Amino acid sequence: MKTVLAYGDSLTWGSCPETGGRHPASHRWPDVLAAALGDSVTVITNGLRGRTTAYDEYLADCDRNGVRILPTIINTYAPVDLVIILLGANDMKPHICGTAIGALQGVRRLTQIAKNHMQGLSNGHRAKVLIVAPPPLVESDDPEFRAMFDGGIEESRKLASLYEKLAREMDVAFFDAGTVAEASTLDGVHLDAENTKKIGVALAPHVKKLLAV
Amino acid sequence: MKTVLAYGDSLTWGSCPETGGRHPASHRWPDVLAAALGDSVTVITNGLRGRTTAYDEYLADCDRNGVRILPTIINTYAPVDLVIILLGANDMKPHICGTAIGALQGVRRLTQIAKNHMQGLSNGHRAKVLIVAPPPLVESDDPEFRAMFDGGIEESRKLASLYEKLAREMDVAFFDAGTVAEASTLDGVHLDAENTKKIGVALAPHVKKLLAV
Amino acid sequence: MKTVLAYGDSLTWGSCPETGGRHPASHRWPDVLAAALGDSVTVITNGLRGRTTAYDEYLADCDRNGVRILPTIINTYAPVDLVIILLGANDMKPHICGTAIGALQGVRRLTQIAKNHMQGLSNGHRAKVLIVAPPPLVESDDPEFRAMFDGGIEESRKLASLYEKLAREMDVAFFDAGTVAEASTLDGVHLDAENTKKIGVALAPHVKKLLAV
Amino acid sequence: MKTVLAYGDSLTWGSCPETGGRHPASHRWPDVLAAALGDSVTVITNGLRGRTTAYDEYLADCDRNGVRILPTIINTYAPVDLVIILLGANDMKPHICGTAIGALQGVRRLTQIAKNHMQGLSNGHRAKVLIVAPPPLVESDDPEFRAMFDGGIEESRKLASLYEKLAREMDVAFFDAGTVAEASTLDGVHLDAENTKKIGVALAPHVKKLLAV
Amino acid sequence: MKTVLAYGDSLTWGSCPETGGRHPASHRWPDVLAAALGDSVTVITNGLRGRTTAYDEYLADCDRNGVRILPTIINTYAPVDLVIILLGANDMKPHICGTAIGALQGVRRLTQIAKNHMQGLSNGHRAKVLIVAPPPLVESDDPEFRAMFDGGIEESRKLASLYEKLAREMDVAFFDAGTVAEASTLDGVHLDAENTKKIGVALAPHVKKLLAV
Amino acid sequence: MKTVLAYGDSLTWGSCPETGGRHPASHRWPDVLAAALGDSVTVITNGLRGRTTAYDEYLADCDRNGVRILPTIINTYAPVDLVIILLGANDMKPHICGTAIGALQGVRRLTQIAKNHMQGLSNGHRAKVLIVAPPPLVESDDPEFRAMFDGGIEESRKLASLYEKLAREMDVAFFDAGTVAEASTLDGVHLDAENTKKIGVALAPHVKKLLAV
Repeated sequence: MKTVLAYGDSLTWGSCPETGGRHPASHRWPDVLAAALGDSVTVITNGLRGRTTAYDEYLADCDRNGVRILPTIINTYAPVDLVIILLGANDMKPHICGTAIGALQGVRRLTQIAKNHMQGLSNGHRAKVLIVAPPPLVESDDPEFRAMFDGGIEESRKLASLYEKLAREMDVAFFDAGTVAEASTLDGVHLDAENTKKIGVALAPHVKKLLAV
Repeated sequence: MKTVLAYGDSLTWGSCPETGGRHPASHRWPDVLAAALGDSVTVITNGLRGRTTAYDEYLADCDRNGVRILPTIINTYAPVDLVIILLGANDMKPHICGTAIGALQGVRRLTQIAKNHMQGLSNGHRAKVLIVAPPPLVESDDPEFRAMFDGGIEESRKLASLYEKLAREMDVAFFDAGTVAEASTLDGVHLDAENTKKIGVALAPHVKKLLAV
Repeated sequence: MKTVLAYGDSLTWGSCPETGGRHPASHRWPDVLAAALGDSVTVITNGLRGRTTAYDEYLADCDRNGVRILPTIINTYAPVDLVIILLGANDMKPHICGTAIGALQGVRRLTQIAKNHMQGLSNGHRAKVLIVAPPPLVESDDPEFRAMFDGGIEESRKLASLYEKLAREMDVAFFDAGTVAEASTLDGVHLDAENTKKIGVALAPHVKKLLAV
Repeated sequence: MKTVLAYGDSLTWGSCPETGGRHPASHRWPDVLAAALGDSVTVITNGLRGRTTAYDEYLADCDRNGVRILPTIINTYAPVDLVIILLGANDMKPHICGTAIGALQGVRRLTQIAKNHMQGLSNGHRAKVLIVAPPPLVESDDPEFRAMFDGGIEESRKLASLYEKLAREMDVAFFDAGTVAEASTLDGVHLDAENTKKIGVALAPHVKKLLAV
Repeated sequence: MKTVLAYGDSLTWGSCPETGGRHPASHRWPDVLAAALGDSVTVITNGLRGRTTAYDEYLADCDRNGVRILPTIINTYAPVDLVIILLGANDMKPHICGTAIGALQGVRRLTQIAKNHMQGLSNGHRAKVLIVAPPPLVESDDPEFRAMFDGGIEESRKLASLYEKLAREMDVAFFDAGTVAEASTLDGVHLDAENTKKIGVALAPHVKKLLAV
Repeated sequence: MKTVLAYGDSLTWGSCPETGGRHPASHRWPDVLAAALGDSVTVITNGLRGRTTAYDEYLADCDRNGVRILPTIINTYAPVDLVIILLGANDMKPHICGTAIGALQGVRRLTQIAKNHMQGLSNGHRAKVLIVAPPPLVESDDPEFRAMFDGGIEESRKLASLYEKLAREMDVAFFDAGTVAEASTLDGVHLDAENTKKIGVALAPHVKKLLAV
């Protein structure tokens, strides 16, 4: 049995841009991926709304800094064989980070942790890493989202090429979710059911290859 | 006896733009409010220079993150009947937050805490909340203040309408201090004695209504 | 679909006292519970080795303070309908806490959080709570475990009655895992496969009743 | 106008051992002290239930570490002329600290902060310090309090002489509240109305002398 | 014997823009300074790559906030006679701080700490302070550095005059390293061997005067 | 050139039990070690009074938790070839940790960090580790030290055998400083000049072997 940790934000939790609630499990990309991978792989959905790559924020009653929590999450699900990192959208908020280069550096640190974290097992088990670039932000009619992500559309479009270069630099896998899915114009950030499902479908062959299943 | 907590920054502490020191109590808005409310209400002045809504900073030898300290302060003065939140000016510094939308989100979190914080009393006492928008920043001749709040004048002008909408969304009270007071041109941020007093006078009827006194 | 969060330590992760590794999923109590509850309930296993109720420790490369992480975990799996708290064994280490009364107070705080945490959903969804007392520590031949939990056997025997009283005080559910399972004499703390399975079986009717499934 | 900061725990907040609620202001020692000092002195009551001298705890939804919060509180009430420190009772809980010598060291650090903290005023204003030893814990019939403060009666009896020696060492003032007040046997820790008032009365001449009023 | 603490970032550690590694000791400015000062002075090199003046970041596996670590470092080398602060370049990253005025405020706080920190010695020993402005950033061909320090060239050019004014305000010494050294065009930030040596040579007479050696 | 990091507490800083001040460099064990090793090795003295292995304390104005600071220190002196860990005495204070088994676990975590910390160098440089057990505490006439370390003499005597076993378990080097030095009866903890020098002399052959110099 192999374990895949899907470490992300609201795109992984499954925020529905229409209702503001959560997509049913069957529409979330980690569940779609799990269905495609079959019974020999467990996919852990770990998506926290508002999670940043590596930046503090105190705007919700929980720790949203992806770097500070990742070691706890890996240990909780150890042995973890693959960590899929799908983060960066929340970094586009100017009051959090505001730049693609800032998100890049957060993902670099997350990748270092995921690759090197000792999982507390006698055999020195370590995880592989797959970096996924989020679909770029798009124009929307929601004025608070527009203000909250001011300048984010342009910056978010830089993420895929930056993350791809990082993956090569660190010798981990990469996938650009923007090649198969796009954000909803309802809020400019989140994915409707069809688009979140597409990510799960598209990741399946990559994960199978990485896990050799 | 009712208790009102005036939770703010230097505008609540009473920074004098002329001397850099503290206005005497008789000129600070919480004391003016207290005088107007009479003996059945205690007004606690809790203004910390440099306090942000929800953003860390390490530029002084004390914790200036408004979100992290608010629970301690509410418990210290429990039972608290009304929390007046007058924050956001320090968020206008680009190296702290820099945007009105960032301040809005900080005040949203402060309001969540103030409304829901359990005060450690057997009767489940909770506080009401009154959000007060600070007077917008203005042009000044102090070069360090101008640089420190670069772009802040425009952003600070957005606070009142954003806070008002937030108050409706969260079903709490709102007052725009910019309707009765304006910042001093000496430093562009702080209030002279007349202007700070005006806020206390203007808040009195709103507070009386909220406390039914 | 209902969601149950199994929030615990190594007893929930599934530490095997014989191998030092992890029991297979089929032997862990949350999976046994899930099987008994059927398809209308999802059980999230969230067991972190070394997790304390509310006490800091820096002896591993992750945050083990149960209080600080719980809000993040609830939000990650929101909407959560029931939080099962099975913690306290690690509090028995003298350098962490060392007393049953200390563990009691940690569980009280965890219960306050679990009951009151706003899960970021428009309907104000809150979770129910089931407190589970861990089986008491027993004598063992492992000298490091004996020293690490010095005095813990006696203190751990007090947990069940303290937790039961707390559950009544806070109007939440309670189960004493010590009535169906006992720690292994190999290390004095962890559960062999049979004993961890017994907890899942025994919890099933309690959880069904709480969730009305 | 002089400002006195009464920095303490539930003994300063005014916990009533009979009701579990708060004594009315007229019965709390800081208010009694204020009445005795007259209009030229403001006494700030800053008592937080559960506050420790210098020890972290995560058993309530607020920061209870006295050392970490003191700079924020001094700055909030600056200029502060005298800080009265009445802490140590909560340190007697074994899971927090458990020893008189630990409380002594916490009070030493608090005194360093109070004496040396720069209050952000151009004249370099610093505060004086008055250390007050709490009345020793006493036997009680409340089983949770007895367990929570196990061993605390004996340790708490050592506080007065340790604090007195510390005050001499650091050249600050000292008063032993145990010479005029005693804890209630209802819970072994808190003060009934008469006993809390006695502390305010007894402190008045010491504070007058220190402030030269 | 006098002790000088060189508190800085990669410019003090000795990052080589050509190799990405560390300059040999003989090329680092603190060692060059030590050689010039002679045997009666010990120079402690304390340069951490990525260190900011006062801003948190979680992009490396260590604490890079200069304010939070400085007290530990001073105490480690106590008695310290002079703290040389050469920081600000990393503050130019937009996702960390992004403005010269933000760096200025960080250095103000560092200077307050360095001047006032009690070093735990019975004689109340305090350190002198020498603020050094880093050479401004320059154009480079490294695309990641260019993006990471976007806007930094212009902001970094403001540091010298801001730091000089601060030094006068706080009555400490000042030196502008940009008068003797310039950053390498290889990465736009770091110093080649010749330029780092020049800083040590240039600082020597200033340090001699401050220490009266 | 090889670099050795001497990571410790007051025994490494060089606290003199007679004066309360610092031994001159020539009497401190890291300097004695450096002299014995010759010019091809740099020995970095990093001793912080009050440093614990892994336990928080807020009794001084600096971070004394050895685990939290070690990554910063290693990076500051990178490339580090050997980390000598001489800690545990301060863990003997009951209000910090109080048990040898607690100190053991702190040293285990420090050793994990020292062995595995990536030093930010392209060649993946890692350090070796040498664990040194401190000389046991002894009886003294200083009443505050006696109270502060209550029970510590017995616990400290267990450290050498526990650390030795840990070193074997983690495949790092070990030396028992108690075989060559003993604490002064003046305060029961610190070392006079002769005894601190003996540690440096005794460590030299071990370090030479580890560094192959």
